[in-house]
Amino acid sequence: MSEQRFNELRGEQVVYAIHRQDRTFLPDREHCPLCPTRPGTPPGGETEIPFPAYEIAVFDNRFPAFEHPHGAAEVVVYSDDHDASFGSLSPERAEALAWVWRHRYRELGERPDVDYVFIFENRGVEVGVTLHHPHGQIYGYPFLPPVPALEVAADERLGSCATCALLADELAAGSRVLHDSAGVIAYVPYAARWPHEVHVTMRQHRASLLDCSAGELRELADALQRIVHGYDELFNRPFPYVMAMHQAPTASGSGPTPAGLDGHLHVEFYPPLRSAEKLKYLAGSEQGAGTFISDVLPEESAAELREAIVRAG
Amino acid sequence: MSEQRFNELRGEQVVYAIHRQDRTFLPDREHCPLCPTRPGTPPGGETEIPFPAYEIAVFDNRFPAFEHPHGAAEVVVYSDDHDASFGSLSPERAEALAWVWRHRYRELGERPDVDYVFIFENRGVEVGVTLHHPHGQIYGYPFLPPVPALEVAADERLGSCATCALLADELAAGSRVLHDSAGVIAYVPYAARWPHEVHVTMRQHRASLLDCSAGELRELADALQRIVHGYDELFNRPFPYVMAMHQAPTASGSGPTPAGLDGHLHVEFYPPLRSAEKLKYLAGSEQGAGTFISDVLPEESAAELREAIVRAG
Repeated sequence: MSEQRFNELRGEQVVYAIHRQDRTFLPDREHCPLCPTRPGTPPGGETEIPFPAYEIAVFDNRFPAFEHPHGAAEVVVYSDDHDASFGSLSPERAEALAWVWRHRYRELGERPDVDYVFIFENRGVEVGVTLHHPHGQIYGYPFLPPVPALEVAADERLGSCATCALLADELAAGSRVLHDSAGVIAYVPYAARWPHEVHVTMRQHRASLLDCSAGELRELADALQRIVHGYDELFNRPFPYVMAMHQAPTASGSGPTPAGLDGHLHVEFYPPLRSAEKLKYLAGSEQGAGTFISDVLPEESAAELREAIVRAG
Repeated sequence: MSEQRFNELRGEQVVYAIHRQDRTFLPDREHCPLCPTRPGTPPGGETEIPFPAYEIAVFDNRFPAFEHPHGAAEVVVYSDDHDASFGSLSPERAEALAWVWRHRYRELGERPDVDYVFIFENRGVEVGVTLHHPHGQIYGYPFLPPVPALEVAADERLGSCATCALLADELAAGSRVLHDSAGVIAYVPYAARWPHEVHVTMRQHRASLLDCSAGELRELADALQRIVHGYDELFNRPFPYVMAMHQAPTASGSGPTPAGLDGHLHVEFYPPLRSAEKLKYLAGSEQGAGTFISDVLPEESAAELREAIVRAG
């Protein structure tokens, strides 16, 4: 049901998942497929999760872009509370989620049909969310997608880990750093494409979640939640974003090279708002030329976000 | 007022034009800055165009992403009729517009600070239009942006013009062709990223508008209008899109190589609608991995668009 075609002009794969056109679209809360199944529900009436309660649930996407043995598409439900959000999870639940991500990265990454494990969350109708129940997704691409390929190219261009180099620059500059713990740094990057883009990066060179200590996983979950709390505080509203975790590719033979060019775990947030009321659109320059034009300097955005994070406590 | 920064992880320039945050945003029609200046308007009250009537007007963008001598940003107003659109222009006006584009390509392309001339139109609030008066824009980038760089890379990968090769494939397949004249072909590309993406391509290898005959320019304008008429017919509403014209880079030294790897004039339409009511969002996969997931097969989209173009007459 899913088909890949190579787009020659862009040099990239495009995926056609035509059954997805009919996927569930913003159902009312009584028909949420990610809520637990109420006791007494007649057979056939279950939600996607046939249990009366749960903490974190992972399952194959019913409307998948990729299917075994040609990749994977999974849903990760953060909570059985329909009105929760990543930011509202208890610190313990967020930490558990980091362990779930780690488990899925390992299991999917070991599959021969998965070359890249991509853990992400779309939040808000502004980025096309079709289910409000708090959840993220995982795609197991059967190829290396363009963005991680660009990160590999950056490492090769520099001859060393580009993320390590950028992190050192951010720590030296300081003006865009939002959060700084022993293991994790969050900052608005020097050349942010989105007005309030944030990267959350492991301080040490960690190729993936598998290389992180338990303490680092806890710090990562904590840093991600702090950023989301700051976002929600910034315009005093639930803040839409795409959250994208970049890790080492998992294609066989794509393991670490002597130069350490294996990837460096970091999470990128792309929020579509340029102000409380206005969206940043991807229009002519971004789509047709590939160049982002931003109205906001990263240092100014960092100053605003830093204050919002403090206010959010 | 404009600043460029190199985004190391993506390998691309990002442009900060911070004065643009305050640009005119969807003014009511009485305050449209692209309408002609009414006779009797007191000094200082003129619109951007200090004439009581005009056909096509070109001027520097008041809120530019690029400024001389570090590139260019121009506005091209299609008509003094506030309620016109590219599709509603007379064939003669559309043809004249192609000559204006050609003139601007030549003049901007000759400047040493312009490496790539990008002619485009954003139509509809769905792609972030801030002025409804019918107009397009031209950016003169002081660098080669990522998308044309990918097209150059495609030519190099194939060792010949990728657009020529794709066009031959489309003509052989036939199933996605929408319009076919002596000089210009329009089709939904084999690996379209957007549900109703259309490419309008010169049949002969023409690096830019400067290489086109008068007849080819007329056919190009005609083909573009037919596509837009079909779009507007498809869902019986003004159809939003980004229209992006790709031509040869203009950096000194980027002229044609022996292999003819100089570019091939074509116009790409990216419409954000996946159905009459639903937008195609760029979310996790598109933004974080760079891979487009589409719900619609290009052949199906082409069949719908072909019928709409016939209905539109």
